[in-house]
Amino acid sequence: MTRTSIATVCLSGTLDEKLEAAAAAGFDGVEIFENDLIGSARSPEEIRARVRDLGLTIELYQPFRDAEGAPPARFAAVERRFRAKLDLMARLGAEMILICSSVAPDTIDDDELAAGQLRRLAGMAGARGMRIAYEALAWGRHVSTWEHSWDLVRRADHPALGLCLDSFHVLSRTDAYGEIPGDRVFFLQLADAPRLDMDVLQWSRHHRLFPLQGRLDLAGFTGAVLRAGYRGPLSLEVFNDVFRQSDPHRTAVDARRSLTALTGGLTPAPRLTGIAFAELSVDAGSGPELERFLRTLGFAHTGQHRSKPVQLWEQGTARILLNAGATGAASIRAFALESTDPAASARRAAELLATPLPRRRRSSEADLTAVAAPDGTEVFFCRDDHGWLDDFLPTGESPVKGGLVTGIDHLSLAQPFDRYDEAALFYRTVLGLTEDEASEFAAPYGLIRTLALRNDDRSVRLGLSVPLLRRGDWAPAVPHPQHITFVTDDMAAVAGAMESVDIPGNYYDDLAARLDPPPLPRNALHDQDEHGHYQQLFTPVVGDRVFFEVVERTGGYRGYGFANDPVRMAAHRAHRGAR
Amino acid sequence: MTRTSIATVCLSGTLDEKLEAAAAAGFDGVEIFENDLIGSARSPEEIRARVRDLGLTIELYQPFRDAEGAPPARFAAVERRFRAKLDLMARLGAEMILICSSVAPDTIDDDELAAGQLRRLAGMAGARGMRIAYEALAWGRHVSTWEHSWDLVRRADHPALGLCLDSFHVLSRTDAYGEIPGDRVFFLQLADAPRLDMDVLQWSRHHRLFPLQGRLDLAGFTGAVLRAGYRGPLSLEVFNDVFRQSDPHRTAVDARRSLTALTGGLTPAPRLTGIAFAELSVDAGSGPELERFLRTLGFAHTGQHRSKPVQLWEQGTARILLNAGATGAASIRAFALESTDPAASARRAAELLATPLPRRRRSSEADLTAVAAPDGTEVFFCRDDHGWLDDFLPTGESPVKGGLVTGIDHLSLAQPFDRYDEAALFYRTVLGLTEDEASEFAAPYGLIRTLALRNDDRSVRLGLSVPLLRRGDWAPAVPHPQHITFVTDDMAAVAGAMESVDIPGNYYDDLAARLDPPPLPRNALHDQDEHGHYQQLFTPVVGDRVFFEVVERTGGYRGYGFANDPVRMAAHRAHRGAR
Repeated sequence: MTRTSIATVCLSGTLDEKLEAAAAAGFDGVEIFENDLIGSARSPEEIRARVRDLGLTIELYQPFRDAEGAPPARFAAVERRFRAKLDLMARLGAEMILICSSVAPDTIDDDELAAGQLRRLAGMAGARGMRIAYEALAWGRHVSTWEHSWDLVRRADHPALGLCLDSFHVLSRTDAYGEIPGDRVFFLQLADAPRLDMDVLQWSRHHRLFPLQGRLDLAGFTGAVLRAGYRGPLSLEVFNDVFRQSDPHRTAVDARRSLTALTGGLTPAPRLTGIAFAELSVDAGSGPELERFLRTLGFAHTGQHRSKPVQLWEQGTARILLNAGATGAASIRAFALESTDPAASARRAAELLATPLPRRRRSSEADLTAVAAPDGTEVFFCRDDHGWLDDFLPTGESPVKGGLVTGIDHLSLAQPFDRYDEAALFYRTVLGLTEDEASEFAAPYGLIRTLALRNDDRSVRLGLSVPLLRRGDWAPAVPHPQHITFVTDDMAAVAGAMESVDIPGNYYDDLAARLDPPPLPRNALHDQDEHGHYQQLFTPVVGDRVFFEVVERTGGYRGYGFANDPVRMAAHRAHRGAR
Repeated sequence: MTRTSIATVCLSGTLDEKLEAAAAAGFDGVEIFENDLIGSARSPEEIRARVRDLGLTIELYQPFRDAEGAPPARFAAVERRFRAKLDLMARLGAEMILICSSVAPDTIDDDELAAGQLRRLAGMAGARGMRIAYEALAWGRHVSTWEHSWDLVRRADHPALGLCLDSFHVLSRTDAYGEIPGDRVFFLQLADAPRLDMDVLQWSRHHRLFPLQGRLDLAGFTGAVLRAGYRGPLSLEVFNDVFRQSDPHRTAVDARRSLTALTGGLTPAPRLTGIAFAELSVDAGSGPELERFLRTLGFAHTGQHRSKPVQLWEQGTARILLNAGATGAASIRAFALESTDPAASARRAAELLATPLPRRRRSSEADLTAVAAPDGTEVFFCRDDHGWLDDFLPTGESPVKGGLVTGIDHLSLAQPFDRYDEAALFYRTVLGLTEDEASEFAAPYGLIRTLALRNDDRSVRLGLSVPLLRRGDWAPAVPHPQHITFVTDDMAAVAGAMESVDIPGNYYDDLAARLDPPPLPRNALHDQDEHGHYQQLFTPVVGDRVFFEVVERTGGYRGYGFANDPVRMAAHRAHRGAR
């Protein structure tokens, strides 16, 4: 089993907090980032003991800068500095140091000189049983490709000198990275990133992500390095502005999950066949309002939980639970997915470090297992035999036949600012969903990012959204409520029955100028793609965190109407102001 | 007097909120951004009336996209859409529309075709007494330079068709923009930006700033356009992620200030000769602790305010007021600057929209006038004759002669996340300071940006700092306290007297490996530049918002020790944990 490691620079907090988080998430080792050590009040010996007590190993000490290519007059100072760092490593119990290619303006472009200097430093390290992993920074002054760093390592030809490969530095430059000398790769650092057209140094310093969260081919690269014979740890080195200021325990779990998903060997994701139910927490204010909305849409209150204050509402294949036993304002607290193998779904979730939740049901319903999503939303797995319905006593009301709503189209889950990339990876890997559509738009109080995920047959669709920047005092506290989107095949009837928020006339004027759509029911929004049309209708927001949407898809429209989100948000804002 | 205008897209909120903020900040007019109108529940007629009632005019309606170069089969739809927008403008009372160069993939690269289409649209607009301002987007499909847009306008040759120049689109591509046909420029949009090496579309959409807040030559460009004979408004069009989610009233003031500073004609900034005093608010807990720190540094409590619970502490030229009459935790609530002409300083501040503060002093001290900085910090202007000291009754204690501290070196003012760019522009323009040094570093709980400002002779130095991202639940609530930095010429004596936070031994090991500095007093940090050396010593944080620093500069060192900030922050964090 390949060892896993994480650089302390990936995590927020003090060195102690970082080490504890890495250990708790199950990493085997860490890279000690020099600045974290310098800021720590613990001595190297104390850090060594702490690392050991936590069950970790120090895989790498890093970085050592501006070594190779130094003008000979400066190289004496490099040697002095290097010797001091070897002394430090001996105290720490670290056996490998990373040297990254020089960026200093006075660096000399002379491979023979540089290789000789690296050989000399390798001699110093080797004499103490230590090794050097030499890495080409993508913005190195003269050495900026892994091939060039490999050329220097070959020229230096010292057993204590090998390569450090960093997936970001390699893949940010090229996808054609050629033949990798696996036995001379001493260390492998992994980082993903979105594809950004910007200065590579800034891209690297601010926007790295954990594997599978970005757009670099981490799976291909990692596989190639492992096939080439690399036997060291898979170590994450991610510089990310958000991770730097987020709870390191959550970030470490996110990081560990990304490595687990990358290296595979997981229980395959069973096929999902639909959303069994969505559960809303309600309170004295929101409960009656949500019940009223459901009633006007044609839902029936068909069941009451045997032991808990939970109502079951049904229409078509849509099932909504209203849970008055939970605390807090109305929100989506849980949803259940129909799986062809709920136990395997839960097993895969556990393998991917999802937090298992205590069973809420009686033991007879063993299939209904749940895990917590990154923001705490409960995700249940159940069979499509509706066995979980036995928990509910019939009220006598029957589901409406041929009602307005035929099922749940998708769930829109607003995410906490710090957890967006984690949530996307979580839902994608745990549930085996694929990315469907991503969008960024200007809402009245700031920019919003949205990502839709779906399974193959679109029977499970989730929308994730997050503000591009964390909101402050000015913007509404809950800038983008969650919502449950129902699907209908008779939007005109829905519009006649449902309480909807008023859509500005200016929207319809613009729509007519742009698209000349067919007549729309009152307050319905319109979108279209190359397949067909989409109509959307919204209830007011209940409390400040949840509302219902009803959509009609015609002709195979595949989107989510993201382009209309700013209008919907402005309409909700105006509705709130008007109350 | 040139009219001023702001595009509604610069501001956060609903259209109503944006219009109110623009009017309150004193703008003459606005550009109505289409999405703001579409999201508004007000009819165009109601918006027209609202704009008029607020004393504004609509200078421009924008944007109209993908017009020129349309395949002939699509151009009929362009005309239909354009006619609908002219109808809308008639209802709004807008007389000019912006057409930006096409980005649609099907756009045809044929200047004759494009010019003919623009001529046709200009005919439609002209027939209704309206005009078109045509703008080259830097990322336009075929038209991406202002020279190209001017070529099409000349070819089209219609009196209702002119140019829109946008400083960002021009200056992001070139500083050599050539001869500008002033009488054919119908509209001038101004935006500054930092110099970023990235995709120009992303740069433009997320990182624009108000004039003088970035690195583009706004003054040169605006002057050139005005000299060329442009007579329309100066209008701001700034897409900025932070401004989009900040209080629009503050942003509008910031925007208006930038235009005022750009167009000049201000009272010249009088010469500043020093920091007269810094005033800390204190409470029952922090007061005694701050007094103790001041005492151990050699300060004497020399005066007591005649009517208020304010203590005066003095040493050398350093004067600290401790104000127990203010509410809230210990923090820097005010500072006073010695000006060769305090009245002129205050006049300039008022011209630059600084909020004047009611006089806190008796009428006999007319020179002590104050304005509020963006975060509410009170900035006083006074003569260097120390007349304000008359407000204080002597306690009998005398200032220590030849004490440890000789004066105030600088003030470090942590800024609210939303107000950083505004604060930098405020202090720079109101006080006539220049940028001294900018830095970005990784603090234990996230990245921090820092900017130092100073006057010519360095008798007034201010450091501004802000987290790169707004902090959330994990990072400490006050991640970067403010501080007052005193200067000494005997750091060893200070170190012997003062209670300082412990600096990790790892810091000294690394320092020795890197720089081999002369021996340092216990807990002192070291920095050096090409001029000389710098030593820094810190007290613990008092409350959670303020501490004292003492520095010694030798050999003309000019910096602020920013590189040591992460170590200082980690030390303060460790000190807090140890208490």
